[in-house]
Amino acid sequence: MYGYAMNKKDLQDRLRRIEGQVRGLQRMVDEDKYCIDILTQVSSVQAALKAVGMGLLDDHVRHCVTESIERGDGREKVEELMAAVARFAGR
Amino acid sequence: MYGYAMNKKDLQDRLRRIEGQVRGLQRMVDEDKYCIDILTQVSSVQAALKAVGMGLLDDHVRHCVTESIERGDGREKVEELMAAVARFAGR
Amino acid sequence: MYGYAMNKKDLQDRLRRIEGQVRGLQRMVDEDKYCIDILTQVSSVQAALKAVGMGLLDDHVRHCVTESIERGDGREKVEELMAAVARFAGR
Amino acid sequence: MYGYAMNKKDLQDRLRRIEGQVRGLQRMVDEDKYCIDILTQVSSVQAALKAVGMGLLDDHVRHCVTESIERGDGREKVEELMAAVARFAGR
Repeated sequence: MYGYAMNKKDLQDRLRRIEGQVRGLQRMVDEDKYCIDILTQVSSVQAALKAVGMGLLDDHVRHCVTESIERGDGREKVEELMAAVARFAGR
Repeated sequence: MYGYAMNKKDLQDRLRRIEGQVRGLQRMVDEDKYCIDILTQVSSVQAALKAVGMGLLDDHVRHCVTESIERGDGREKVEELMAAVARFAGR
Repeated sequence: MYGYAMNKKDLQDRLRRIEGQVRGLQRMVDEDKYCIDILTQVSSVQAALKAVGMGLLDDHVRHCVTESIERGDGREKVEELMAAVARFAGR
Repeated sequence: MYGYAMNKKDLQDRLRRIEGQVRGLQRMVDEDKYCIDILTQVSSVQAALKAVGMGLLDDHVRHCVTESIERGDGREKVEELMAAVARFAGR
């Protein structure tokens, strides 16, 4: 059981909303909408994805990382976490 | 006709790929995949969206903005562009 | 004369303030301040630098880029601009 | 003793280098250097600051956060950490 398990429904709802936003982008392109309006929508999908990523990180630290540290074998989890934060903060 | 018109097919292909990646994220959550693996996939969707945004910006500057400056009424377009860059660079 | 010329004093003031913030960071480290407080200060220097970068971009587009497009030789300037936006949006 | 204590010299060296880069920016503005060259230097200061921030986060998680979890009172530290990651990833 991972950290996000208890928020699984909320997470799926967010991902479905993001999928809908991406389909909305395709529709905007199809209908030749104005570039800046499409770009504004791209920025809002990025913000939604970032919120998902932050939520996952948060659940992960609160559960998987905390539990592995409590069990005394947190080192590897911490390495892995920091690599994920670096990738994520790079976007 | 907007700047992205000539790359419309490429843009739609990218957006469909992103839609597929977002559905892949939903599948990962459904199958209780490991948080860090989901987060890695989130980072790669973010990178793909950023590439789409940069491409749109690029086409927009090369066409809409350049043409409006050539016609002598670029001021408003430049204001609008910089606001979009600020939103986009903020993610 | 570049785009930032008219705001040169404001730009120098901002850069001096940033220099002061970076020296403040060194002091915090010297005085063994708490990591999270140092990190918060790092985030605020990042925000200040980003504002400087956005201001430079803005002046650049409004002046150098616009003028070169008006003179009919904007292509190279636009290439160069988009490369700078990509580097800048990557941070 | 905080996480960065053992890397204090390295951290101070990096901060001094960043201070030097910011002074370099002031010199570039004084000498009316080209906007895009100044912006490139701004991007490289941003990258250097980000590396400092990631290093601080890393030391913090490996030491302060890990130790407080081991002592059984990690909850507050984890909240604080995630707030710092969110601020930091926002730049």
